[in-house]
Amino acid sequence: MTHAPVYGASLLSTSDAGADAEELLRRGRELVDPPLREVVDRLHPSMATVCRYHLGWDGDGSQGTVQQAAKRVRAALALLSVRSVGAPERFAAVAGTAVELVHQLSLLHDDIMDGDTERRGRPAAWARYGTGAAVLAGDALVVQAVATLFHARAPGSQAAMAELITAVEQMVEGQAEDLALEHRPLGEISASRYVRMARGKTGALFGCAAALGAVLADAPPAVVGALRGAGCGLGVAFQILDDVLGLWGDSELTGKPVGTDLTRGKKTLPLVLAAASGSADGRRIADLLGTAPPTPDQVAEVMRLLETSDSRVRAEEAAAGHIAAAVAMLDEAVLPHDVRQQWGSLIDCLSCRRR
Amino acid sequence: MTHAPVYGASLLSTSDAGADAEELLRRGRELVDPPLREVVDRLHPSMATVCRYHLGWDGDGSQGTVQQAAKRVRAALALLSVRSVGAPERFAAVAGTAVELVHQLSLLHDDIMDGDTERRGRPAAWARYGTGAAVLAGDALVVQAVATLFHARAPGSQAAMAELITAVEQMVEGQAEDLALEHRPLGEISASRYVRMARGKTGALFGCAAALGAVLADAPPAVVGALRGAGCGLGVAFQILDDVLGLWGDSELTGKPVGTDLTRGKKTLPLVLAAASGSADGRRIADLLGTAPPTPDQVAEVMRLLETSDSRVRAEEAAAGHIAAAVAMLDEAVLPHDVRQQWGSLIDCLSCRRR
Repeated sequence: MTHAPVYGASLLSTSDAGADAEELLRRGRELVDPPLREVVDRLHPSMATVCRYHLGWDGDGSQGTVQQAAKRVRAALALLSVRSVGAPERFAAVAGTAVELVHQLSLLHDDIMDGDTERRGRPAAWARYGTGAAVLAGDALVVQAVATLFHARAPGSQAAMAELITAVEQMVEGQAEDLALEHRPLGEISASRYVRMARGKTGALFGCAAALGAVLADAPPAVVGALRGAGCGLGVAFQILDDVLGLWGDSELTGKPVGTDLTRGKKTLPLVLAAASGSADGRRIADLLGTAPPTPDQVAEVMRLLETSDSRVRAEEAAAGHIAAAVAMLDEAVLPHDVRQQWGSLIDCLSCRRR
Repeated sequence: MTHAPVYGASLLSTSDAGADAEELLRRGRELVDPPLREVVDRLHPSMATVCRYHLGWDGDGSQGTVQQAAKRVRAALALLSVRSVGAPERFAAVAGTAVELVHQLSLLHDDIMDGDTERRGRPAAWARYGTGAAVLAGDALVVQAVATLFHARAPGSQAAMAELITAVEQMVEGQAEDLALEHRPLGEISASRYVRMARGKTGALFGCAAALGAVLADAPPAVVGALRGAGCGLGVAFQILDDVLGLWGDSELTGKPVGTDLTRGKKTLPLVLAAASGSADGRRIADLLGTAPPTPDQVAEVMRLLETSDSRVRAEEAAAGHIAAAVAMLDEAVLPHDVRQQWGSLIDCLSCRRR
């Protein structure tokens, strides 16, 4: 995996960029994994088994892939959040744990909702342990997320609970919109509707991760707002790049079969942009991805049409735009120079993820 | 539906017993349904549709059955909670709404976990709107439960959040145990293990409902403890009677086909007691309900064996015991006479529910 910036988000010319991101991801994981394990260990044994498997802690199967994919990006954001305001790392541990628990709930339940039988190159938790167990494991995790924040002793713990509640509300709203869009004709979906959905589905929790540590430390609202906004924009970019990977990624690396988004009627940004382009190819794509699930031949034709269109480039440009907006928000917040460098490094790392 | 006490829980000789319970259930519903509707109305339209259907607010199908079954027992308990300590009704509205939201989440997800295609005489929400939509609707409700309590302005709002978090943790733990027991041989399950499971699965939220209004009012811990304990005991009794109804109830009234618990491997108390009795019939029941789902012939044989055993009576006696313990806890709390009467009336109403 390379960390060469492709979107120019980094303001660095030094070679430390990748090192900073790696340190953030490593330290974020160090802070969050122990409390995460404690939470899982306290669950009912059957739930703990499901969660350990889901988190890749059970030593089963392709451990390498699991470890590689589970980068704890949100924990790194939580760490950057406290570093941005000079707050202690223990706030990052609490914030990162709460956010990571919500994220893991969303993955457990998303796989059920989307009927995805694979995650990180092996059976999804529901496919392995049954739908019921995976539903309940997700419920257990979201309660623990709330409990983690509730028991935190910090000056801004009340505001932090409000921050988390709002983020989870927005995340669920975004997931509901994502699910609803599956049943809508592609031609009806505008790019702005897509972005609204992605801001909820992915942006809200990224924003929460970037803000929560600072909120716990009772940081000034203007800084918190900038961090939240930057995190949210990054999350939207992350989602768009995920869409691109879903169509053109290496399934060995993504751990998911390519084209499942297509078959399932997911309104990913490259498709939305193609259909909205007004071109004959775009109209043909919209027709092929009508109401019924496409046949393998239709999927192949959509992929051929997408190859000759500029949808992929335009989706990547859109991601770059959201990243640029995130960077601008960070600059407004006037962060310490070294922390600002670390932000740039993490952003670069995320913007070329899994290539 | 009659409200004649069958377990002698009522200390009343007046004819007001049934009237008290009806007033509690009616007033509890009046307090909780408007905020519940507000919460549902704020959800994503597709989630609101699922929740309205699940709550029987959509005017679809057998409305009579839906209305009859959805008695909002927990809202009545929340109302009794505030009356027990002389607190304002608005605390009952908040507490009842939060608890009811958690209860509705558990129903939505339970039906998925148990593969129950019917609830209250019509298709379960997941059977009607899809598993994904029902999973997500449950997630939306649990977040709203936390949000409802978080935004409450009350002297004991911090303690109330702790009370709710603990109850939901225990509920999920009980559900996990319930799910785990499905795959265990009947002969291995003791009555005490069943009770531990039922205290989590059903007792915890009943206890929370009975305590939460008083907690919001910052009532003395001894009174809160008695209310919580009484509610929990009532919940266990309620679950046992639900088990009995699952085997011998009128499916027209319960809204669920009789015998589904049996087929699914649920370790209901009458089965546990039969298998633990040491009788030849009990051993035969345990054999018939081995690891594989029983055939219709095997189900019929189990039902015949149960008829001639005393399992039903013993399960009902166990329920009466939990009710007696609840009553004793209420007496220790020394409640105002009229409130104590209302408790007795509600307990009587619950102990002969759906007959």
